[in-house]
Amino acid sequence: MSDISEFQKEREKLAELMMSKADMNMKRFLNLDTKVYEDGALPAKQKEMLGLVASLVLRCDDCINYHLVQCHKAGVPEVEIIEAMDVGLIVGGSITIPHIRRALKSWDELEGKK
Amino acid sequence: MSDISEFQKEREKLAELMMSKADMNMKRFLNLDTKVYEDGALPAKQKEMLGLVASLVLRCDDCINYHLVQCHKAGVPEVEIIEAMDVGLIVGGSITIPHIRRALKSWDELEGKK
Amino acid sequence: MSDISEFQKEREKLAELMMSKADMNMKRFLNLDTKVYEDGALPAKQKEMLGLVASLVLRCDDCINYHLVQCHKAGVPEVEIIEAMDVGLIVGGSITIPHIRRALKSWDELEGKK
Amino acid sequence: MSDISEFQKEREKLAELMMSKADMNMKRFLNLDTKVYEDGALPAKQKEMLGLVASLVLRCDDCINYHLVQCHKAGVPEVEIIEAMDVGLIVGGSITIPHIRRALKSWDELEGKK
Amino acid sequence: MSDISEFQKEREKLAELMMSKADMNMKRFLNLDTKVYEDGALPAKQKEMLGLVASLVLRCDDCINYHLVQCHKAGVPEVEIIEAMDVGLIVGGSITIPHIRRALKSWDELEGKK
Amino acid sequence: MSDISEFQKEREKLAELMMSKADMNMKRFLNLDTKVYEDGALPAKQKEMLGLVASLVLRCDDCINYHLVQCHKAGVPEVEIIEAMDVGLIVGGSITIPHIRRALKSWDELEGKK
Repeated sequence: MSDISEFQKEREKLAELMMSKADMNMKRFLNLDTKVYEDGALPAKQKEMLGLVASLVLRCDDCINYHLVQCHKAGVPEVEIIEAMDVGLIVGGSITIPHIRRALKSWDELEGKK
Repeated sequence: MSDISEFQKEREKLAELMMSKADMNMKRFLNLDTKVYEDGALPAKQKEMLGLVASLVLRCDDCINYHLVQCHKAGVPEVEIIEAMDVGLIVGGSITIPHIRRALKSWDELEGKK
Repeated sequence: MSDISEFQKEREKLAELMMSKADMNMKRFLNLDTKVYEDGALPAKQKEMLGLVASLVLRCDDCINYHLVQCHKAGVPEVEIIEAMDVGLIVGGSITIPHIRRALKSWDELEGKK
Repeated sequence: MSDISEFQKEREKLAELMMSKADMNMKRFLNLDTKVYEDGALPAKQKEMLGLVASLVLRCDDCINYHLVQCHKAGVPEVEIIEAMDVGLIVGGSITIPHIRRALKSWDELEGKK
Repeated sequence: MSDISEFQKEREKLAELMMSKADMNMKRFLNLDTKVYEDGALPAKQKEMLGLVASLVLRCDDCINYHLVQCHKAGVPEVEIIEAMDVGLIVGGSITIPHIRRALKSWDELEGKK
Repeated sequence: MSDISEFQKEREKLAELMMSKADMNMKRFLNLDTKVYEDGALPAKQKEMLGLVASLVLRCDDCINYHLVQCHKAGVPEVEIIEAMDVGLIVGGSITIPHIRRALKSWDELEGKK
């Protein structure tokens, strides 16, 4: 199994655990976290790219992987992923490079080029 | 003079000072920092919004103001600014709220509604 | 007017601006941001102290000031504020010191010792 | 062996290595890091919860696990852990979610529900 | 009065306030914060430059100013300050630029070129 | 194989992947990231130590490992590594401790004491 598939499986299991323990306020947050990325004045696709770059500069591999999956589903081409990462890289600096490296491996797995 | 005009004036003065002191590597970085936001596979406008959200979650008022000015020049409507900020707010949490407040004041000044 | 009074006045003005521009998702976030600090299994007072230390290690003066005001209203004594800050200082390091200094000035103003 | 037990074993081994190499200043820091969480005006239990939320918003799994173990020893009930995490989640944003998920798995292991 | 002189005056006043309120643990931290920068295997001058770059990537203007003052006292030439900032800039990204700009203004004031 | 050798092997593989996908701007950044650490007014060795402490306070294990390897090649003795880490620890706080622990394990592996 590819790393990204393993990530998705583990993520799903832990998300269920979190939902089973969440109180009302935690559930409200999780619910809002879904709504924010829905189509609005900005298309969902562009919001996922915003989420991707935000996750990159804050350096969270899980969040990067999640938004990469969403971008892939939304049909974002690799050239746009790279340019979005360029923005994250210049804003966030070389400290983001290890995350970009792992993200590009995830992307290849999503594209089936593993 | 509005706060955003003062910001721009001060920013320009300090940017000149930085350029006058910068060595070759610092100049290369500043140069690359311009190139990254130019039209490519992604339009400059969308890259500025990526820069805006990255700056918001990293909580840098100067960087937020800069990208707001660029978004305003590129004709981004307020409703898109708000939705982009929604992404920054959910990803980065309530710690970003003081920055969103000040950013919305800057935006009003840019729109001439001060 | 003390710095903390000025902070509160400015904060109120900008909070109104934000509310006037907020879309549904932003309003939901702001609403949840209030609910989270209400009495529950943990008393509101203890939640405000959690918010204070979270704000300290993330180094946001506005957020620190806000939670100091709430702690003051809830009757937290100075000795507990100091011990909470000790936790923030050891976890977050010397980079939090300038924020602790300003927070202690705010605290004195809240106590009317300005 | 559960993940949290493995974490504790590895942590202990590396803590010994660090102590064996630490100079006087590093030892002083480690010593102070213990003292700060001792009973004072605030009970040790509440300080551990402050440490937990600080670790959550700074997103350090090892630190979160450490404070979870301490909270568990101090008898903090799950409902209080969840409410403390609500504060961390709203302050720190969705970027903390992967850490909350893993923390709740650790918590279950500590409670023997693995 | 130059900005850096004002900073130093304000800093001194607030440092006194902090010391007057600090409990034993806070005092221990402040004491250790001094010891760490003393001459050891590494000369104090090099430690101040480490502190400068750490403060730059964590983006704390007060901390940057403090270490600039110490570097200036230790006789670090401007060309070394710039190269140290180059490291901070590449590691921490463009988000550090506003801090570098203000730091270079402080540096000029320290050199009496205001 | 030691952890640090595995890290280096994995890093090399992913760095190749990144280079194969990088556009012009990403390549420029990677190129600049090399130049910044070359001998200048400051010797390369001292710049690597600046990079080490910057990576420590930003808490990136990969970046810490990379700079440890470079420091080891440049002949930095352990006592200087420890003192540099003392600066990172006091500036960045206890949240850096898990990274220091792992870094010291890497260092031992580099010294062949695994």
